[in-house]
Amino acid sequence: MAESNALPLVLLTEQFAKLPGIGMKSAQRLAYHVMKMSDSEAKAFADAVINVHKSVHLCSCCQNYTDRHICPICGDDRRDHSVICVVESPKDITAIERTNEYKGVYHVLHGLISPIDGVSPDDLKIKELLARISKGDVSEIIMATNPTVEGDATAIYISKLLKPLGVKVTRLAFGLPIGGQLEYADEITLYKALENRNEI
Amino acid sequence: MAESNALPLVLLTEQFAKLPGIGMKSAQRLAYHVMKMSDSEAKAFADAVINVHKSVHLCSCCQNYTDRHICPICGDDRRDHSVICVVESPKDITAIERTNEYKGVYHVLHGLISPIDGVSPDDLKIKELLARISKGDVSEIIMATNPTVEGDATAIYISKLLKPLGVKVTRLAFGLPIGGQLEYADEITLYKALENRNEI
Repeated sequence: MAESNALPLVLLTEQFAKLPGIGMKSAQRLAYHVMKMSDSEAKAFADAVINVHKSVHLCSCCQNYTDRHICPICGDDRRDHSVICVVESPKDITAIERTNEYKGVYHVLHGLISPIDGVSPDDLKIKELLARISKGDVSEIIMATNPTVEGDATAIYISKLLKPLGVKVTRLAFGLPIGGQLEYADEITLYKALENRNEI
Repeated sequence: MAESNALPLVLLTEQFAKLPGIGMKSAQRLAYHVMKMSDSEAKAFADAVINVHKSVHLCSCCQNYTDRHICPICGDDRRDHSVICVVESPKDITAIERTNEYKGVYHVLHGLISPIDGVSPDDLKIKELLARISKGDVSEIIMATNPTVEGDATAIYISKLLKPLGVKVTRLAFGLPIGGQLEYADEITLYKALENRNEI
């Protein structure tokens, strides 16, 4: 193997191959690309990797990643702090923020209940959610977990926990994706779209 | 955007997005993955990036990447140093070594002649190839550049340079890929396969 010509290249290829969605071929291509970078570019890359570890942590309120004590969303007085949208991961917040429609705040669970993967409710940031709600002033919890078995199970589990507290719990609507075509919709999506049909 | 919650995460996402074949979505996924690494894993990753720059350079003989003065292939006495396989990039050596068939040595051009991209023969490691040949003892040069316009042009350019030196210059065979199907072969490949047909 040509990689064995240069151990540092092999090591870097292995590092890239550990990342999700990157196979050995892509990893090799990326390692060769880093090889062609200037010294300062390579240093900027390495520094970015280290810095993200040094200075990013979880927001003490919503558990999203942030480099401050309270993240900008939780610290924004113009947002409606009585509505909390519960998501699986920080990526989901990015997706929802992109709609520019949601004005409430968030809570990141950092996972979904999944007995098969050994993830129990205790592994999620549910205690932190209950603590936020117990402070009062919360009118609605929007469960925005994915429409999967784990996402549904987690939404139902949390809604059962919250019902006794008198908090309104809602779930994102499921149906046909906008711009999609009926003939390409899977039967479960189509069933949900029928079931949740609205008068026009 | 949720990324704006944590500047270091934005910076790392941007670094990943600069790599070839990685878009903004993948870059974000990778940055979140690095975030979830342990400190020591992140350090190992960053170190690998830096080390590849510090200790890998070009083999003074074949121009392949190596962390020694002479790469293991050039330094291997059991290989046939009279046959030199000329390739575009170090990746190609990996591919050819994988066949376990080739026992000669290599020469990496680090590019192909491409006037459109502003790459002239002077930008390639052609001088170094001529220097190797001028030392004598070379019986054959195998042009293993890609079967593209640039690959063909480079192969022809170099073969014209070498003809006066009395060196035999060959080119990889083109035809149907093994395991492929006639109906899916493009017309140029099929034309080459017909043209280069062999008696059985």
